[in-house]
Amino acid sequence: MIQIIISYKSIGIIHSPHKTLKGTPIQPKAAKDIEGTVEVFSEFVKGLKDIEGFSHIILLYHFHLVKNTTLLAKPFMDNEKHGIFAIRGPSRPNPIGISVVRLNEIYGNILHVQDIDIVDKTPLLDIKPYVPEFDKKIDVRIGWLEKKIYKLPKSKNDGRFR
Amino acid sequence: MIQIIISYKSIGIIHSPHKTLKGTPIQPKAAKDIEGTVEVFSEFVKGLKDIEGFSHIILLYHFHLVKNTTLLAKPFMDNEKHGIFAIRGPSRPNPIGISVVRLNEIYGNILHVQDIDIVDKTPLLDIKPYVPEFDKKIDVRIGWLEKKIYKLPKSKNDGRFR
Repeated sequence: MIQIIISYKSIGIIHSPHKTLKGTPIQPKAAKDIEGTVEVFSEFVKGLKDIEGFSHIILLYHFHLVKNTTLLAKPFMDNEKHGIFAIRGPSRPNPIGISVVRLNEIYGNILHVQDIDIVDKTPLLDIKPYVPEFDKKIDVRIGWLEKKIYKLPKSKNDGRFR
Repeated sequence: MIQIIISYKSIGIIHSPHKTLKGTPIQPKAAKDIEGTVEVFSEFVKGLKDIEGFSHIILLYHFHLVKNTTLLAKPFMDNEKHGIFAIRGPSRPNPIGISVVRLNEIYGNILHVQDIDIVDKTPLLDIKPYVPEFDKKIDVRIGWLEKKIYKLPKSKNDGRFR
């Protein structure tokens, strides 16, 4: 085992109406039409060139409010514990979140996005264009979630991950 | 602007037949059926519980061979420069890669995966279950890629990002 330390720096801040973990929708689908903004720090603005052609972007961000790591946890949509790599909860060894959101408009360094399931003031790590030919899979099995996914549209964070 | 430094540690290593950047397929779709393994360090193995129920997993990893950051770059499938946030190339301010791969089998701390577009010995940051209800979008526009995406199945890394 050769474990290495990797340092990143935030490239922006995500702003949303979700001011606390508790009550934040747990995925973009549970945050339908909710609007937010992605502020990209000025030194990185040049990197946004041509992003306006994409209807959806992948946001990578740091779950900054979560202080603990758990390898087994109860996800929001189940009462059973699963491995952290089989759920999407934030208390991961490396607390990186990803969300695919709709990109509506861009004004300078501010991206207006929709379906935002991210808590206000979250540090941004990266933005990637969402490309179905890269990211969309067919013939998919979703394990423990098969029988729980119906709960998604109304699922909110209850503050269990800290 | 409040830029913060974030430190992560690798949780495993990705093994693949792609020994150099040059020649590595640029997305899972260009790596069809190519097999590799994801070695998860023993201290994190408990986090794999129930992952076998998922047919596809999202790998997050560190582009460890890329030393330079560029905000404008020519992607592999175009001769025009685009902003780094409008392409998927590795020379990003935070060089984090994501790939959705097929999960075939698990033996202890080794995940056998397929469609692997990742260079050998890449440090692993996170594994998430791929869930279409979370990650799959419809009604998508893909900007500059619309006219270039036909090149994908045969696209390989030519070593331009270092």
